[in-house]
Amino acid sequence: MTTNRGPIESLARLREQFEKLPGIGPRSAERLAFHILREPRDFAAALSRAVLDVKDKVKHCRTCFNLTENDPCSICADPHREHGEVWVVEQPQDLLVLEATGLIRGTYHVLMGHIAPLDGIEPEDLTIDALLERVRSGSVREVVLALNPTLDGDGTALHIQSLLKELDVSVTRPSRGLAVGSQLEYATVSMLDAAIRGRSAM
Amino acid sequence: MTTNRGPIESLARLREQFEKLPGIGPRSAERLAFHILREPRDFAAALSRAVLDVKDKVKHCRTCFNLTENDPCSICADPHREHGEVWVVEQPQDLLVLEATGLIRGTYHVLMGHIAPLDGIEPEDLTIDALLERVRSGSVREVVLALNPTLDGDGTALHIQSLLKELDVSVTRPSRGLAVGSQLEYATVSMLDAAIRGRSAM
Repeated sequence: MTTNRGPIESLARLREQFEKLPGIGPRSAERLAFHILREPRDFAAALSRAVLDVKDKVKHCRTCFNLTENDPCSICADPHREHGEVWVVEQPQDLLVLEATGLIRGTYHVLMGHIAPLDGIEPEDLTIDALLERVRSGSVREVVLALNPTLDGDGTALHIQSLLKELDVSVTRPSRGLAVGSQLEYATVSMLDAAIRGRSAM
Repeated sequence: MTTNRGPIESLARLREQFEKLPGIGPRSAERLAFHILREPRDFAAALSRAVLDVKDKVKHCRTCFNLTENDPCSICADPHREHGEVWVVEQPQDLLVLEATGLIRGTYHVLMGHIAPLDGIEPEDLTIDALLERVRSGSVREVVLALNPTLDGDGTALHIQSLLKELDVSVTRPSRGLAVGSQLEYATVSMLDAAIRGRSAM
């Protein structure tokens, strides 16, 4: 018996491409493919172009490794930022989160991951050398290690801290403790541990 | 203060395009956009091409209105199918569901929707005329109205039935009743109603 899934090759191919995206299962992929089939060609053309443009236009800033269309990025190029203060984050997404607070007056340095030997990610796979170079160039006064408060993040932060020790720069990290707005009753042991050890005068 | 969302225009644009897809919120759209940025360019190129191909290559079969890259579609062109038996469905997706059962030996007719005057969908917006034409051509023996068992589906089925009455063709519909595998305890009133009225000898 003939099946009719085969002959609509382009529909099957689109479904397969969508299925390769994170969080998109077979049912969603089918729904998305049919959606595009129903929309005007302009809609498909805009999506198609946007997908390629992001690969063709977005690159990393050669100074801080933030994603950007222009090198240096708008933050590194901004004379009003505090270029002596460098916030080190794991991923470009982390930079977006910090930047969205509107509280950072300094600049950034994106490591592009964390050290994870079991996953084959060694220090030299990250942008640590470039960070040391920035510090050695002399204009950096404070490095804030704003990595994820996880085992891998902490390990990477310690490694970087040990490398920075020899250089004339202050190394800090964001404070830890109870999540504001959370309930003590539901706090994790590690959250409580950080909060208790880090207690300060009111 | 400079924000860094603006300058990465192509990333913002891709996020916006993804957000226009059904079931994709702002967070998923961001995750998808970053995913594409991380994957090799080939990945983006394949997705980009698949999105356009589906619009450029897929059309409707002129006989049954199924989606196809070749006209007539592989089902209408298959000499081993029962061309005297036509299963009428609302959407191409319904055809896929029926076809996947492997139980249909006949052919199909896709209405491209159901009558819904409140949404501005009148009988002439569907492929009803083409169905009548197929029946009038003389080779169709049975029309199975396999529309959705909903108010709109039933209304559309009744309308088509009334038009087919004058023609020499038998009109049937799939049986209704309890969903196999479901529990009586959780059956809806309309499911029970159909099951009770439609009871048959064992």
